[in-house]
Amino acid sequence: MPADSVRVFAPATVANVVCGFDILGFAVERPGDEVRMTRRPAPGVRITRISGDEGRLPLAAERNTVSASVQMLLRHLGREDEVGVDIELHKQMPIGSGLGSSAASTVAGLWAINELLGRPLSALELLPFAMQGEELACGAGHADNVAPALLGGMVLIRSYAPLDVVRLPAPALHCAIVYPHVEVPTRDARQLIRQTVSLKDAVTQWGNVAGLVSGLFLNDIGLIGRSMQDVLVEPVRAMLIPGFYRLRELALQAGAIGFGISGSGPSVFAFAPDEATAAAITEQLRQHLASLGVGSQGYVSAINQQGPRVL
Amino acid sequence: MPADSVRVFAPATVANVVCGFDILGFAVERPGDEVRMTRRPAPGVRITRISGDEGRLPLAAERNTVSASVQMLLRHLGREDEVGVDIELHKQMPIGSGLGSSAASTVAGLWAINELLGRPLSALELLPFAMQGEELACGAGHADNVAPALLGGMVLIRSYAPLDVVRLPAPALHCAIVYPHVEVPTRDARQLIRQTVSLKDAVTQWGNVAGLVSGLFLNDIGLIGRSMQDVLVEPVRAMLIPGFYRLRELALQAGAIGFGISGSGPSVFAFAPDEATAAAITEQLRQHLASLGVGSQGYVSAINQQGPRVL
Repeated sequence: MPADSVRVFAPATVANVVCGFDILGFAVERPGDEVRMTRRPAPGVRITRISGDEGRLPLAAERNTVSASVQMLLRHLGREDEVGVDIELHKQMPIGSGLGSSAASTVAGLWAINELLGRPLSALELLPFAMQGEELACGAGHADNVAPALLGGMVLIRSYAPLDVVRLPAPALHCAIVYPHVEVPTRDARQLIRQTVSLKDAVTQWGNVAGLVSGLFLNDIGLIGRSMQDVLVEPVRAMLIPGFYRLRELALQAGAIGFGISGSGPSVFAFAPDEATAAAITEQLRQHLASLGVGSQGYVSAINQQGPRVL
Repeated sequence: MPADSVRVFAPATVANVVCGFDILGFAVERPGDEVRMTRRPAPGVRITRISGDEGRLPLAAERNTVSASVQMLLRHLGREDEVGVDIELHKQMPIGSGLGSSAASTVAGLWAINELLGRPLSALELLPFAMQGEELACGAGHADNVAPALLGGMVLIRSYAPLDVVRLPAPALHCAIVYPHVEVPTRDARQLIRQTVSLKDAVTQWGNVAGLVSGLFLNDIGLIGRSMQDVLVEPVRAMLIPGFYRLRELALQAGAIGFGISGSGPSVFAFAPDEATAAAITEQLRQHLASLGVGSQGYVSAINQQGPRVL
């Protein structure tokens, strides 16, 4: 008999992974979001409390991605007239940071309802509902945050129609993540990108994508690093991030294996061989941002291998 | 003490592998080309005989890619004023077929001179000379035929500057190859391709590239097959191949795992789970071409794992 109440943590995620625009993403151990979900006798999905969002997220159940995706799942299972839950959402990561904030919340909610119902669906089966949540939050049903948040590790979305998701080996690397306190909404970041590209640049890009995927399977850290280059999207998005190219230089000098924008930014991330190096990189990047008058948050994390977890 | 004479076979190759335009290629066991090279006391590189080319290839040493690349290698080693060789080139595969004909000849020649000199260079070190040979033959120094011809198996060219070549696991599959007797010179086939592409199509393409590479590492035949789709180059090049889409349909109906154009065509290839299926596919495709009034040659081959071999 499933419990009446559950607390679930779902991880932040780094989409794109530099060269893999719209097809790659990975999960980190921290930060992430927490959902506490409790069954009620009366049917219906309610958001009873949100913390950590500075009042930015809607409590209205149909407009909040967490409750909306839970409702969709209940409808799919034919249990919307029977099951009732109260949801507390505890945001433990910044909104609009490029770290998959809405994905973490949505995935935590879906994981929680699935737990309360006795796990009728697999992680992969939860994915379409999480994507619908993303559509509500970001205007597009991308999977490169929700898929790694749900599955953990490094995930490839080979195709959307039909949906084809492949779990890749996650490297035994540590992650430096820095969120500079500037605003880059996902919608705007996407609109900046040119909708046509030169075939030459596209070939360069898929050479790097193939190199990165090969490096992950071969556990070839050098190849992973050499492949973490983006000739198409980064040059545009870098303009939204204060001192981006200097941040890269500092990260690489401090021992980063690769460096780039997390999702649509403004957060940046670096792979590092160990936790101490990741911590040093995070510190250096934050210092440089401070010297530019930009506040920031820093995280040091291993790669999350398991996806969400019940607390 | 190295021998005074050597015979070398180098394999035909399938470049692009459908989605991996300009970055992927693999070698087959047959067809291929043979070079017989014999040392002479007087310095200089001579082509003494070419068979199987229907008189199409130049005997003049500086215009023939085999002798020209051998000369470049000798110059690089500082031995051009000392070493002399006579070269016989026995073409055992069609020219202009999209099967890496010039690459096979060039690689056989470089492998032969390296053998005669006691192997001063590794296979990877021979690659730049083979690429210069390709530049002479095709007007561009691509590596997606010469790299798999030299290294065997499935090869990724992640980057050209600097040159970064990765050996991928070759699938335990068989290959059906059919060369329809129509002329598609590489230069023209390249000029047909649009030089700008939509970002959306590019994302689809690198999703498939990542899927194919993952499928090779995971030995996931289904994923390999699903990833063998090309939304950018094939739609243009298919027009040069009689009945292309019907050929695909026939191949897939006959059990092909994937089907596409070999290099710039007009040859087509299919992956098949076993030799009998590959043979049946080859036969069906040839029959259909015959019904269109197009003659063809067919090959059935395993994937070549070792590259060139001394006969």
